[in-house]
Amino acid sequence: MAENRTEIAELGEFGLINRLAASFSNQLSSTVKGIGDDAAVIDLGEDYGLLTTDMLAEGIHFDLTFHPLRHLGYKAIAVNVSDIAAMNGTPQQVVVSLGLSNRFSVEAVEELYKGIRSACDDYKVDLVGGDTTASKSGLIISVSVFGRVAKDKITYRSTAGANDILCVTGDLGGAYIGLQILAREKQVFQADSNMQPDFEGKEYVLQRQLKPEARMDVVYELAEAGVVPTAMIDVSDGLSSEIHHICVQSGTGAVVFEENVPIDDQTVYEASALNLGPITAATNGGEDYELLFTIKPEDHPKLKNNPKITFIGYLTADKGKILLRTKSGTVLPMQAQGWQHLS
Amino acid sequence: MAENRTEIAELGEFGLINRLAASFSNQLSSTVKGIGDDAAVIDLGEDYGLLTTDMLAEGIHFDLTFHPLRHLGYKAIAVNVSDIAAMNGTPQQVVVSLGLSNRFSVEAVEELYKGIRSACDDYKVDLVGGDTTASKSGLIISVSVFGRVAKDKITYRSTAGANDILCVTGDLGGAYIGLQILAREKQVFQADSNMQPDFEGKEYVLQRQLKPEARMDVVYELAEAGVVPTAMIDVSDGLSSEIHHICVQSGTGAVVFEENVPIDDQTVYEASALNLGPITAATNGGEDYELLFTIKPEDHPKLKNNPKITFIGYLTADKGKILLRTKSGTVLPMQAQGWQHLS
Repeated sequence: MAENRTEIAELGEFGLINRLAASFSNQLSSTVKGIGDDAAVIDLGEDYGLLTTDMLAEGIHFDLTFHPLRHLGYKAIAVNVSDIAAMNGTPQQVVVSLGLSNRFSVEAVEELYKGIRSACDDYKVDLVGGDTTASKSGLIISVSVFGRVAKDKITYRSTAGANDILCVTGDLGGAYIGLQILAREKQVFQADSNMQPDFEGKEYVLQRQLKPEARMDVVYELAEAGVVPTAMIDVSDGLSSEIHHICVQSGTGAVVFEENVPIDDQTVYEASALNLGPITAATNGGEDYELLFTIKPEDHPKLKNNPKITFIGYLTADKGKILLRTKSGTVLPMQAQGWQHLS
Repeated sequence: MAENRTEIAELGEFGLINRLAASFSNQLSSTVKGIGDDAAVIDLGEDYGLLTTDMLAEGIHFDLTFHPLRHLGYKAIAVNVSDIAAMNGTPQQVVVSLGLSNRFSVEAVEELYKGIRSACDDYKVDLVGGDTTASKSGLIISVSVFGRVAKDKITYRSTAGANDILCVTGDLGGAYIGLQILAREKQVFQADSNMQPDFEGKEYVLQRQLKPEARMDVVYELAEAGVVPTAMIDVSDGLSSEIHHICVQSGTGAVVFEENVPIDDQTVYEASALNLGPITAATNGGEDYELLFTIKPEDHPKLKNNPKITFIGYLTADKGKILLRTKSGTVLPMQAQGWQHLS
């Protein structure tokens, strides 16, 4: 090992990836886009191939005391499909590798695969391979997805422009609030195992955490409406973080209107019960897996009646200046804290 | 969790994969071949795409007390490229996911990536993405490779026929003997830390274990010779196991001549020093990452002068009957023990 020791925490995940990526350059003409977007882009001739991968680790991304294995299998596929959706593509084939400690039985693995199969059915992808290995620690799930997109339909993070309209699908913050509730109920149960978890009326936010969906429905609706976003990304690390990615890579700024950020009533109610601000959950909470995208103003009429899409602001020419206009009219810089994992 | 509990060890890795795969069926016309070969095959129109993935786990596939991080990074890419080679394809893009416990510094990760980059250079593949996550346990490396192959050049495991000639590249058993030496020297060192490891004259077998190469050179030479194997697989789990895969999937038997199985002099010498039979190391040791393939008898003249290729036997019509003819003339059934990992 080297003499100097720099802790990974000093750089952070993005810092580490940037440092490592800087030492690589692409040598093949078929590599259209490498590191730096939701998926890599490969020239297949007539259209583009898309390749993305995500690893989920026990104790970091999930806690098996409250993440059912079947939902976890579903989520492992959905979060990867979401990366293909963010390129405006269609997922096609998936490979799944599992690291399993010996506390997992065959029946437990089958339960996980029921969720994987269910997601493969929902997103119309084929499971075509994988690897299964023992693991000294807990459960590790690594998924890679191959997808395709027509060359004139692909959406990068870096191609938005000033005056484009910022759009987001669904609603935000629910997955983060769901995680807080699950963590709280686990503490309650650990303190007194006679206490039963209280999940009534919290079903929506819990589902947002436990079984998120990739917004392939919106990808198809954008195509039907004849709209190609000028940029797109999925909301995995929180709205603020994703807006920063688009703005930094596109060389723009942004203004977001707090009153326009879509938050479900249950998220608002449960956030308040937890003494959390709903807008903080919506902008800095992660794992919603909605799509954040930008469109030219002239495309607004084509989407304005789609109930799944909310227009939350616009891009400016002030590179890197990302502002939140609060309900009271105050303008604040929007911080990108990024997503904090379980540990 | 389910009421019944079946241990994964009861089924084994292949048994588990077969059981899980049975519940999946392919729904897309672009999926040409799913689970069951070295890589999945995707119809891209003009040619085929190939997708494969492998996960390496600390304490299972490698031991950081004797696997240098740089070699490990190289090996993680090489073993995946080897799966593309086994389909007679060319690797193109790779994604790498890492699970890292906090004992790894940025410098250690950079060391790992030096090996990854070196392999990407050697095999002419582009690193186009990945994921980095914390891990509660040790190091987990998950790699997926995308490759391509012309439709008339692809080689499956299932398409060999009786009378085809069995061919293998390089030599076998070295990686297994290298692992035994490393494990022995670790024990010696643990018993007395003043003892220095004795690796002199063992460089070849150690390199076979620590830094194996994918045989892309042979894939290119087969193309130059105008030979498309009738079946191909890479030797990751041991020669016997791979011959069984080809024979079972192709509906053939095989006869292997012990005297023809290529074993390096150092492997023979060190195997004897360890009281192991060289032929056992060659047939049941794993991780050599050579190519095992079959050719039509009429293609033999095109390859007979290639020093990298040895002709070790032939296929028969006796389905599943795989025989080893020993140097003394005895004929024995060839057992497929498969590759035993570190633990």
